[in-house]
Amino acid sequence: MTLLQQKKYEPLTESSAIALAVRLRIFPTTSVLTCKEIGDGNLNLVFRVIDNQTSKSIIIKQALPYAKVVGESWPLTLKRATIEAEALKFFKTLAPDYVPTVFYSDQEFAITVMEDLSHLTIARTGLIQGQRYPLLAEHLGEYLANTLFYTSDFGLDQQKKKELVAKFINPELCKITEDLVFTDPFFNSPTNEFETELENDVKGLWSDQQLRLQTALLKKSFLTEAEVLLHGDLHTGSVFASETETKVIDPEFAYFGPAGFDLGQVIANLLFQAIAFEEKRDIILNDIETFWRVFVEHFSTLWNTQNVEPYSITEGYLSIIIDKYLKDAIGFAGCELIRRTIGLAHVADLDGIEDLNNRIHAKRSALKIGRHFILSRNDYKSITDLLRNLEF
Amino acid sequence: MTLLQQKKYEPLTESSAIALAVRLRIFPTTSVLTCKEIGDGNLNLVFRVIDNQTSKSIIIKQALPYAKVVGESWPLTLKRATIEAEALKFFKTLAPDYVPTVFYSDQEFAITVMEDLSHLTIARTGLIQGQRYPLLAEHLGEYLANTLFYTSDFGLDQQKKKELVAKFINPELCKITEDLVFTDPFFNSPTNEFETELENDVKGLWSDQQLRLQTALLKKSFLTEAEVLLHGDLHTGSVFASETETKVIDPEFAYFGPAGFDLGQVIANLLFQAIAFEEKRDIILNDIETFWRVFVEHFSTLWNTQNVEPYSITEGYLSIIIDKYLKDAIGFAGCELIRRTIGLAHVADLDGIEDLNNRIHAKRSALKIGRHFILSRNDYKSITDLLRNLEF
Repeated sequence: MTLLQQKKYEPLTESSAIALAVRLRIFPTTSVLTCKEIGDGNLNLVFRVIDNQTSKSIIIKQALPYAKVVGESWPLTLKRATIEAEALKFFKTLAPDYVPTVFYSDQEFAITVMEDLSHLTIARTGLIQGQRYPLLAEHLGEYLANTLFYTSDFGLDQQKKKELVAKFINPELCKITEDLVFTDPFFNSPTNEFETELENDVKGLWSDQQLRLQTALLKKSFLTEAEVLLHGDLHTGSVFASETETKVIDPEFAYFGPAGFDLGQVIANLLFQAIAFEEKRDIILNDIETFWRVFVEHFSTLWNTQNVEPYSITEGYLSIIIDKYLKDAIGFAGCELIRRTIGLAHVADLDGIEDLNNRIHAKRSALKIGRHFILSRNDYKSITDLLRNLEF
Repeated sequence: MTLLQQKKYEPLTESSAIALAVRLRIFPTTSVLTCKEIGDGNLNLVFRVIDNQTSKSIIIKQALPYAKVVGESWPLTLKRATIEAEALKFFKTLAPDYVPTVFYSDQEFAITVMEDLSHLTIARTGLIQGQRYPLLAEHLGEYLANTLFYTSDFGLDQQKKKELVAKFINPELCKITEDLVFTDPFFNSPTNEFETELENDVKGLWSDQQLRLQTALLKKSFLTEAEVLLHGDLHTGSVFASETETKVIDPEFAYFGPAGFDLGQVIANLLFQAIAFEEKRDIILNDIETFWRVFVEHFSTLWNTQNVEPYSITEGYLSIIIDKYLKDAIGFAGCELIRRTIGLAHVADLDGIEDLNNRIHAKRSALKIGRHFILSRNDYKSITDLLRNLEF
């Protein structure tokens, strides 16, 4: 990359980040720029570069060649920065309102220069703090209708889809999902982490052979079903939001997989709110219903107007697809509920409950609902059916 | 390629084929070699190079940059030669007894130099001539147990599998299958070809909405389910056989798809024999049963002894997988029965029936059985169930 002075990968500093911004001519040549590293340093460096006169700003994100999780460090491919930048650019063409603009990316230096979203809040953080995002559910429904439809064999040229499947092969990050979402939490694995009070509940899950079989099938679906280009990690921590705006970020797990996976992660991560905060349960359940309704409405419109598959006009085909997505989404949501409660990567919605009894109760709810979703996913015909029968 | 005198792709001649064999040092330097082009010239050049003293011989196969089908010529990627050579080499490591040896391959020149199998007969040709191959069914069952198991997420390292999925992305040849197997025969498409006597039967298929819906689902499975590395065109014309030997050739359609596809093509193409030749119906049905039994036995042994998936020990998982493969295989066999009867590429088993009435009757049987397979595939629990109820 001629835009950087170094020849091969090394981490940027605040001053070399400014130098990059200057060379990219994103700001007027007369600008005085300042820069601050604002990342948490676990996986990526995140530099915010500001023009002091106009207050215009950009983000320069650089992947680090390792991941720090619970104190341990392990090597992690820099290729994830390329996957992330390419996915952002592609998703931007499909759902422009809900994806930040990428100005520049560089594969060798694992750098993505993009729109600064600092005026928004990470949805999970805002939700935990009691913020209400009245359009979040609707926006995510529309985002997924577009990205899932246009990357499926229904919305994408057959040749192009296969090229994209190859381009977004993502073995290392998929392995993280396969282990941490689908495997470790269901076995007595050293990566798991949970309160001793949950030990009996967890042992109950581990000895449940029917649960294990159904989880095996969900894992197989994730491993083999190249239905659509997934975001791959679509929890509320991957969403920037305000009362009016929603932007989906961090698609480094992007990969062609089953559509229900993204849908299920949204459902599960909204549900954590309903589990953690009794007082807003109705609102959140209503949001999940809205999310699904908007997704189905938009997806159906795209199906009926933009479809490239000759079979799409066959009576009953769309219903079968939506029904499959629903059942898959419920199953994947079940996996997410369980793994975020007892696996390696927890959610602040539950971990942040200070009172031990309340926290244990909420986590038991998450495990119970998760188990139920996985075991009973094929019994449900509608999202309303599902939400009406929840026991917290 | 330094082994060839020309610099870029051009078709070999008999003399340049000999020159290549000499440079590859496959024969002793003192050998006197002769060469004959023995291909049908439709898709590939096939040169047989013989050492006159020892009678040792090899095959040099070169892809042509076009395909001739029913007189028309269309461009066809040379990349298929690379896919074919790479698939042969990989399958050889998985099922060494049933795959020819590749001595050399060159991507740019679309050349594969391989074992000469001229002592064997193409199974379809031999079967039509009344030859009996007593081990064919068993061998194909074992071949598929090995290739399907070791290329699935049960038998292959997760990272390696994803790299192979990318390597065997095969858009152009998949498109041929998607159109000619799954789409055109079920619509009034110009590629279809059938006797006027079948017109009412064919119109019946085209107006059968339930059939169309079920075929749509089978096509979706072929488009999205990257379960295993398929041969992709495993009919009896892709098999060399004798009474004791079986070799599977021509995997240029290789691609990660649903395991049932290869299984179903074997079943359908054996069934054409049972449809065309009443007198050997019992033998062929017995062969299909043997094929399936051997496949399940070998696959189950590999599952139990070589599995890399932690969930594989879960009670009931293997049965679910075998059951899925069976139902998929029945559905895909149904598509093959129909498309080989009324689509673009027919089979000599049926087309070779000289008496018009007998031929039409056989073709009606193929259509009826094909339709039944597609519609009722999920009702069958065993291959015996399926074969016992056949109406010819």
